[in-house]
Amino acid sequence: MPSEPHHVVVVGGGFGGLSVVKGLAGAAKKGAGVRITFVDRRNHHLFQPLLYQVATASLATSEIAWPIRNLVRDRPEVTTLLATVTGVDAAAHTVSLEDGSTLAYDTLVLATGARHAYFGHDEWEPFALGLKTIEDATTIRRRMLLAFEAAEREADPAVQAALLTFVIVGAGPTGVELAGTIAELARDTLPPEFRNIDTTGARVLLIEAGARVLGGYPDDLSDYARRSLERLGVEVRLGQAVTDVTAEGVALGDERLAARTILWAAGVRASPAAEWLQAPADRAGRLLVEPDLTAPGHPDIFAIGDTVSIAGPDGKPAPGIAPAAKQQGFYVADVIRRRLSRRPAAAPFRYQHQGSLAQIGKKRAVIALGDFKLRGALAWWLWGIAHIYFLIGVRSRLNVAINWLWIHARNQRSARLITQGSSGGKLPPPKVP
Amino acid sequence: MPSEPHHVVVVGGGFGGLSVVKGLAGAAKKGAGVRITFVDRRNHHLFQPLLYQVATASLATSEIAWPIRNLVRDRPEVTTLLATVTGVDAAAHTVSLEDGSTLAYDTLVLATGARHAYFGHDEWEPFALGLKTIEDATTIRRRMLLAFEAAEREADPAVQAALLTFVIVGAGPTGVELAGTIAELARDTLPPEFRNIDTTGARVLLIEAGARVLGGYPDDLSDYARRSLERLGVEVRLGQAVTDVTAEGVALGDERLAARTILWAAGVRASPAAEWLQAPADRAGRLLVEPDLTAPGHPDIFAIGDTVSIAGPDGKPAPGIAPAAKQQGFYVADVIRRRLSRRPAAAPFRYQHQGSLAQIGKKRAVIALGDFKLRGALAWWLWGIAHIYFLIGVRSRLNVAINWLWIHARNQRSARLITQGSSGGKLPPPKVP
Repeated sequence: MPSEPHHVVVVGGGFGGLSVVKGLAGAAKKGAGVRITFVDRRNHHLFQPLLYQVATASLATSEIAWPIRNLVRDRPEVTTLLATVTGVDAAAHTVSLEDGSTLAYDTLVLATGARHAYFGHDEWEPFALGLKTIEDATTIRRRMLLAFEAAEREADPAVQAALLTFVIVGAGPTGVELAGTIAELARDTLPPEFRNIDTTGARVLLIEAGARVLGGYPDDLSDYARRSLERLGVEVRLGQAVTDVTAEGVALGDERLAARTILWAAGVRASPAAEWLQAPADRAGRLLVEPDLTAPGHPDIFAIGDTVSIAGPDGKPAPGIAPAAKQQGFYVADVIRRRLSRRPAAAPFRYQHQGSLAQIGKKRAVIALGDFKLRGALAWWLWGIAHIYFLIGVRSRLNVAINWLWIHARNQRSARLITQGSSGGKLPPPKVP
Repeated sequence: MPSEPHHVVVVGGGFGGLSVVKGLAGAAKKGAGVRITFVDRRNHHLFQPLLYQVATASLATSEIAWPIRNLVRDRPEVTTLLATVTGVDAAAHTVSLEDGSTLAYDTLVLATGARHAYFGHDEWEPFALGLKTIEDATTIRRRMLLAFEAAEREADPAVQAALLTFVIVGAGPTGVELAGTIAELARDTLPPEFRNIDTTGARVLLIEAGARVLGGYPDDLSDYARRSLERLGVEVRLGQAVTDVTAEGVALGDERLAARTILWAAGVRASPAAEWLQAPADRAGRLLVEPDLTAPGHPDIFAIGDTVSIAGPDGKPAPGIAPAAKQQGFYVADVIRRRLSRRPAAAPFRYQHQGSLAQIGKKRAVIALGDFKLRGALAWWLWGIAHIYFLIGVRSRLNVAINWLWIHARNQRSARLITQGSSGGKLPPPKVP
């Protein structure tokens, strides 16, 4: 009889956690073997880079999300568990779940991600909608579409103007993509459908405290992105910080902007992995991990992705993007395999930046791959092909390609549905709250 | 200056209301013309015949629902209004809206549909989920998928069995289609994904008070449908009435069936059009309309679809299905056009039954077109082709065809997402309530 297989518990089914599980493929058959419990509080893996397209009614949720247990169905050694982890007892080698039960591990991987955060202004959350989950995206979609509907019915011009003002806070990739897509929706898709309002007059503002849009990109691409947004009608405000957010709008110092739809793409806070371990974290709550991605003092606990901070040899931290999480996930799988087969430890983790891509609007995108820079229509096609390539499965790829084709050729966005909440006769309110 | 155009207010964007608006195309240009206000409390037209496929995770919501204002964007005389009608003042020729405002009409068409109903047992509603709206469908999908998830975590065999028991009440087309699809999901799609439970052991019960499944179909097709369901593992209970529904399960007289997921496909109640008009209605609340589909005593108010009852020359009422609502809608448009152009009144409305189609499972369907009857694989292909034909737009047709192809070839159902509720950090409960 072989000994018990080594039990790896992976918490979080995002890009990081999924890469750990993928990286451990085949390990079950070697030596005493491995068994994996894959825990997430949601039943699906989400392709977050395209989540803004659900929020802006371009894609359906099921085109960018897949049931986690479906992704690992061919791996008998992997058990998927829909459960919420509430804490870690590192001394006992267990994680606790929301129902009070515990789960023992030999090796633990925390890949629990991040949520949007409001720089200490949690009271802004009801008004400034963040974008991390499918429910976030359908909430934004609903609020945005209801704003146009309410404006169509509104008699008071001041209220109508506030309903037709969309403020996006934060000009990183998500903010830029949201601003560009909402501007295109108002300018290209909606005009023939409304009778009392001119949706092309909708105001889309992108507010950024820093000096540039797409701060992580080369200067000239940032500049191109800003000009492209302005050509789409977006008002780009650089070097301005939001000082208050209410149901009525936002304040930028003394200036008040009346707006009923405010989207938050400005800051994130790590999930509480560092708190669970009572380990040091940076200002955003990110656990400061060792060079091999273990938690300090806990060689059997790894942490990866948006919940950690790790500096590269140049001192710059790895960015909170999918490729970084994936690289960390595969690295951790390699470390675990080496340990199990008693091979020498791996070299410290080193993030390899593969490039940055962002879409601004139709036929407008920017790509920076090392010294190679591209912008415009060709960049936009490459952006589309790359994203379709990274989707999971032929079915999703075909459906997304069809929907993009329709947006491109006909300006029709397929998922313009105002839905939400549970059933039982309750109706969506016809007015924006 | 021509006189004011005639103002038609159409309430309800289902098959009936949409057909009225379509049937009035071009009328705006003749004589004094027509203007139309198209009111619905939801922003989308829903293809209800395929709603059970959203509930069973086969299709995405946006593949069977389209924004109403998008469908009439090329009709400048049509104004779409997202609003809830709360009453009709026939004397004043106005309808009242939920915000207290009123809308004046020259001609009013009520096409407000029906909701599921519980034969006087409204207390069953929280436990027996009906299927009329997109939210109903995503609620059923969520509850059904959560039941499998909870069963995977459950240690108590009795609770596990109740979680894996699915009861469908009512064996009309919706009940049959739900039962067959859930059985296939448990039998073909889910087995490789669970480690602690055998989903092929899930119990699917279809309970019908009448003597047959698909009561409206010829005897031999009913019989075929029952046998097909049984071959899929569905327990068909005929001639048995549900006498109680609780969180624990259903009662059939003295027998109690422990089940955590109960779906209601047994009865409907008309929307309150008859109450608004204080006009006579049948037991299900359906307004008894005149032979020209006007409300008794109100020649300027038409009512159509599931909110009315009208008997054919044979005394049998027109069924509550899409073709009946469509025929009534086009008939009403014709009556209105004749009145506006002072042509003779139309002959009384007569429902033409075009046929009945229902899918039971993969390669199993029944079709009854007059004397022509078909069942089996060919019927299933025709069923699929007919439904794709009736969808709106090439984009939806392609996406649905792709998803069906995947189900057929790979047993993969594309929309197996547990989502719902608004965002803000709240999580879906991991356990079935």
